[in-house]
Amino acid sequence: MAQTAPMEDQAARLALREDLARFDCRIAQPDDPPLFTRSPNSASQTTLWRWKDLEPLLERLGEQLTLDAGGQRRTLRLQNPGLPFGTTTTFWGSIQVILPGEIAGAHRHTANAFRFILKGSGATTTVNGERYTMNEGDLVLTPGMTWHDHEYHGETPMIWLDVLDISLMRSMHATFFEPGEKIQQEVSAVPDASWRKWGSGLMSPPGQAPRTADNPLLVYPHEVAQAALQAAAGLPPDPFDDVVLEYRNPLTGGPAMRTMGMRLQTLRPGMRGRARRHTGSKLYYVVRGEGATIVEGRTYEWSTGDFLTIQPWAWHEHLNRSSTGEATLFQVNDFPAMSVLGYYFEEERAEAAS
Amino acid sequence: MAQTAPMEDQAARLALREDLARFDCRIAQPDDPPLFTRSPNSASQTTLWRWKDLEPLLERLGEQLTLDAGGQRRTLRLQNPGLPFGTTTTFWGSIQVILPGEIAGAHRHTANAFRFILKGSGATTTVNGERYTMNEGDLVLTPGMTWHDHEYHGETPMIWLDVLDISLMRSMHATFFEPGEKIQQEVSAVPDASWRKWGSGLMSPPGQAPRTADNPLLVYPHEVAQAALQAAAGLPPDPFDDVVLEYRNPLTGGPAMRTMGMRLQTLRPGMRGRARRHTGSKLYYVVRGEGATIVEGRTYEWSTGDFLTIQPWAWHEHLNRSSTGEATLFQVNDFPAMSVLGYYFEEERAEAAS
Amino acid sequence: MAQTAPMEDQAARLALREDLARFDCRIAQPDDPPLFTRSPNSASQTTLWRWKDLEPLLERLGEQLTLDAGGQRRTLRLQNPGLPFGTTTTFWGSIQVILPGEIAGAHRHTANAFRFILKGSGATTTVNGERYTMNEGDLVLTPGMTWHDHEYHGETPMIWLDVLDISLMRSMHATFFEPGEKIQQEVSAVPDASWRKWGSGLMSPPGQAPRTADNPLLVYPHEVAQAALQAAAGLPPDPFDDVVLEYRNPLTGGPAMRTMGMRLQTLRPGMRGRARRHTGSKLYYVVRGEGATIVEGRTYEWSTGDFLTIQPWAWHEHLNRSSTGEATLFQVNDFPAMSVLGYYFEEERAEAAS
Amino acid sequence: MAQTAPMEDQAARLALREDLARFDCRIAQPDDPPLFTRSPNSASQTTLWRWKDLEPLLERLGEQLTLDAGGQRRTLRLQNPGLPFGTTTTFWGSIQVILPGEIAGAHRHTANAFRFILKGSGATTTVNGERYTMNEGDLVLTPGMTWHDHEYHGETPMIWLDVLDISLMRSMHATFFEPGEKIQQEVSAVPDASWRKWGSGLMSPPGQAPRTADNPLLVYPHEVAQAALQAAAGLPPDPFDDVVLEYRNPLTGGPAMRTMGMRLQTLRPGMRGRARRHTGSKLYYVVRGEGATIVEGRTYEWSTGDFLTIQPWAWHEHLNRSSTGEATLFQVNDFPAMSVLGYYFEEERAEAAS
Repeated sequence: MAQTAPMEDQAARLALREDLARFDCRIAQPDDPPLFTRSPNSASQTTLWRWKDLEPLLERLGEQLTLDAGGQRRTLRLQNPGLPFGTTTTFWGSIQVILPGEIAGAHRHTANAFRFILKGSGATTTVNGERYTMNEGDLVLTPGMTWHDHEYHGETPMIWLDVLDISLMRSMHATFFEPGEKIQQEVSAVPDASWRKWGSGLMSPPGQAPRTADNPLLVYPHEVAQAALQAAAGLPPDPFDDVVLEYRNPLTGGPAMRTMGMRLQTLRPGMRGRARRHTGSKLYYVVRGEGATIVEGRTYEWSTGDFLTIQPWAWHEHLNRSSTGEATLFQVNDFPAMSVLGYYFEEERAEAAS
Repeated sequence: MAQTAPMEDQAARLALREDLARFDCRIAQPDDPPLFTRSPNSASQTTLWRWKDLEPLLERLGEQLTLDAGGQRRTLRLQNPGLPFGTTTTFWGSIQVILPGEIAGAHRHTANAFRFILKGSGATTTVNGERYTMNEGDLVLTPGMTWHDHEYHGETPMIWLDVLDISLMRSMHATFFEPGEKIQQEVSAVPDASWRKWGSGLMSPPGQAPRTADNPLLVYPHEVAQAALQAAAGLPPDPFDDVVLEYRNPLTGGPAMRTMGMRLQTLRPGMRGRARRHTGSKLYYVVRGEGATIVEGRTYEWSTGDFLTIQPWAWHEHLNRSSTGEATLFQVNDFPAMSVLGYYFEEERAEAAS
Repeated sequence: MAQTAPMEDQAARLALREDLARFDCRIAQPDDPPLFTRSPNSASQTTLWRWKDLEPLLERLGEQLTLDAGGQRRTLRLQNPGLPFGTTTTFWGSIQVILPGEIAGAHRHTANAFRFILKGSGATTTVNGERYTMNEGDLVLTPGMTWHDHEYHGETPMIWLDVLDISLMRSMHATFFEPGEKIQQEVSAVPDASWRKWGSGLMSPPGQAPRTADNPLLVYPHEVAQAALQAAAGLPPDPFDDVVLEYRNPLTGGPAMRTMGMRLQTLRPGMRGRARRHTGSKLYYVVRGEGATIVEGRTYEWSTGDFLTIQPWAWHEHLNRSSTGEATLFQVNDFPAMSVLGYYFEEERAEAAS
Repeated sequence: MAQTAPMEDQAARLALREDLARFDCRIAQPDDPPLFTRSPNSASQTTLWRWKDLEPLLERLGEQLTLDAGGQRRTLRLQNPGLPFGTTTTFWGSIQVILPGEIAGAHRHTANAFRFILKGSGATTTVNGERYTMNEGDLVLTPGMTWHDHEYHGETPMIWLDVLDISLMRSMHATFFEPGEKIQQEVSAVPDASWRKWGSGLMSPPGQAPRTADNPLLVYPHEVAQAALQAAAGLPPDPFDDVVLEYRNPLTGGPAMRTMGMRLQTLRPGMRGRARRHTGSKLYYVVRGEGATIVEGRTYEWSTGDFLTIQPWAWHEHLNRSSTGEATLFQVNDFPAMSVLGYYFEEERAEAAS
């Protein structure tokens, strides 16, 4: 089935093509794109979205798009130019804008989703009846088929990053969607129950921890993340990522979501990471600071508010050229999905480029 | 992000389209195919391939296609008419023909593969240095990145079903391929080592069983499968499938491969199964006998040697109308991949249709 | 083998006794203690140790016992009056006193151990090269075969609870002990590394979490425990224990140690718990407040500093009769060992006694 | 707490002894047996029971002991001369004799048990309603709290080895026992259901395999064991045990029972094993042949029908001095219990003694 060598029987193959097609059959043809390649030849392109471009677009969306109460969202999708849809082959990152007084109505879907708050604070989200107030830097999960709706009563527009594993789910034809019967869910009498049970990470109610496939913890507040980053700064630096932490399911030590992983990292002044490449895809959001990522020899300079996705199996390395300022990156990747299927592979370059 | 309601701001959306595209962004547009659907709307089509059509095609392949020794295979791919490639969204089933005296040279790839022997016996396969002789009804695994080559010295063409999870792997851009340095691997001095260690299923060398992600057992002989089916015939019948067994990893009780599941089932005379639908896809091969499967109201009659794939989320049920003959089906599905991602859903119809 | 009925062949059995003994054999005899009982008939006794008794004893230990530097400890063991050794059938709780200027030298042993700080602060413990400063209310683990030594330079004696699963380990003949080559270990250049990696509970360095059998986190500070208790107070009350939390391994959601579990609980004013009984044993330490536990109808009144162990399979329930003061209990149990062997059973009484 | 050095404060310690005892407290005393030892100092003794001694004792038991129908068993217990009860610290091996026409009535207990058939065939055992006919060489499990009763209608006495983890369960005070309401259980309408479902080891009904803590498979027939041993003889020899197999739970790859492991091994002519020592205990039964085991320099010669237990942490090695005859050993050990608690340790001697 491998087309690594020129076909010696080209003519025979071409002659069979039509007869086979009549019976829903085919054989490898000389003009087929290769079924097997030595390494991944991904159509997905390394892409940088700049905040200076995005910000005016988001303002226009706020002004010009209606948020009806029927479960619609006002989102700007980051579209990979090499793919028919999706930010990467597996997920779609979008920037959601919610205006003072708006409600994003309740619905649920099989796609797993999360939001990472970019600007503003005070919107509430209700996930399966649990209401949380969202603040900048918080990570809030809506695992597949959890009901969710949002409401906002602040002063200025609030925006967050919305990521769904909808690209993979579409490839696998498993999309289900259900609008809520009411615009908003009823809110549980016990506020923040998942946080109260599992938010300590170290102590929780006794008894067998639930063997749910999904993470029972729905929220990772900004303060927890900052404190953890600060503690981790005392560890030996990660050679690729300096100070880097994975959001984890406190019951399994596994990734925070089944198909998507999230990380937060700090590149300290002068940091120059080693290069690495891997299957799977990721999207970075620059929380704060500036720096650069060199992807297959091309340098992408980024600063606060930018987004960057990197082509699968492309060599890449991070730099912080500042001598004083830290840079903080939030990352979403599909490594959990890749790994659980056995499709995750990586290679490290031995030394930092000089 | 949901397009379940007509957009009230169609004009505004259309007006933004081009400006957004310049910055690799987009928003939902009135003419987009729906991102979310109430239930899966799969392009994959229920398709029946008949042995009476396949057999002459395979003969022509045997006559007209060259099997060079460079790792190529002579395979007839079962092409789903609704998909750009693949038998289903996740895997590709092909029928491989090997002629007396031929060698299918060594290679390896990240795609997981297996073969189920359809006709003939006596070809040897060598997987990571372990050589097995393959006979009709045997199932032989080549997990991702295991070296494999085949050799045949029989009298008549031998054919088998080859299945690879290449469709999913391509969607996820994780294809790697490596040709062997030599045409054939060296054969290990301990013949059948994985079978000798793990083939009993009930007893194996002491010590911690290996925590490999992949099944360490490479072969499931026909005799084991027949004996198990015979024992299982004494259990209460499965309401959907009558007598049905899953090939399992003896170290985990899990599926025989990480992404693909295999089953063998017997529909006894007069059997009429209840209807079910599920996400994920499967391909049946009719090992022996005849019967029918009703898919969303349409009846597909099948007999020995036919193949049938069923559209995801389509209701389907099996019948054996014979009053005397048993029918045996071999099935490959992608339930392991779907399940491990959390994308497997199923519904059962309460009663058999009458 | 069951002796639930009178033996009809008593004479024959007695006549065989000596002949069998000559060959290291025996049969059930009429005067044997029963091999099987309807339910556990434990020799372990419910026992209350009062702080008012312990405190002067500890003072005498501080005055009269030498702490040489050879790895010895100054500990007052809580001895169950029904057992030949041990606080319970599985573990031994001891109160350790360390005086200003003392060093408890390095050693390691297969027994799993932990300390829960009762009074004072400022002693350091070094566990496998990681040095922590211990404060009142902290829980510090020394899993089996981790090197540990302590040092103290404060003003007043510092005391902590030391618990080892030495009773069970002795029953199973698996005791190993090794004194350190030097009095004190070298201290790692990265302070608090396990805390920095795993102490957040929610975020930690990326990559596969270690699949160690032992919890990689060595310390649970008092502040974390208090914050978690406060959050949990917002959940519906536990009917037996009011507000109760388990110290967990952040990588597995399992117990903090392999053989021993630890909990912290608050009985709020007026709390009256339902009754329960279980196999396995536990020891309570009253961190603060006062209350009572009714064990098989007998009331044990306790207050700050007391210890209470409860006979296996004895019905017991907790009360806080105060209308204003909270009571806080620290608990160690052997439920992890019991559970992993399949020996843990429990029964709940339907209603609170009135 | 370690008593590895002489106590410098002996007088002070002795003076405190009585005062402490009044308050259920104690401290280490000069005359205490050591709490910690460098390595296990087990009271359990290496013991050989010879079939030539056991056989006449079993005949006397058959003649002189009554088997009433109330759940009693006629068993000869192998009593370790170094222990107050038990063949080892964790389990008790007994030889059960059942005579033609007898019924061993139904009961259940928390202790895990199994039988390995030594002589005869044809008795039936019913475990939780599943009836099996037992033949020489079969292994039949009765996990904790499964109902079991036996019935025999053969010609000559039938005997089997009965092993229960009752020693460990008594140490941990978790014994429960329940006699059946009737002498015999009702037999399920589906014969051998667990064998039909799980006996293949490689194929079983689809769906999530049950996550039971206990092995769902109740029987390992002699033929399966022999076939597996024969296949394993083609693998490289085990340096300690030649050809050796573990009975495994087909759903987990783990041991056949939670607390006890079973193995079957063949020592081929001329085999001389390397020496090893380990915590935990084991009992060998010589199924066939003769050989020797050297334990800490002392040679134990054994032949068909003998039993041998080995002191924990004693060096031991096996020999088969015959130039023609194979020896087959059945082994039960407590390694699963030891391992799951983290109490299993082993050392291998680098070279075979010469």
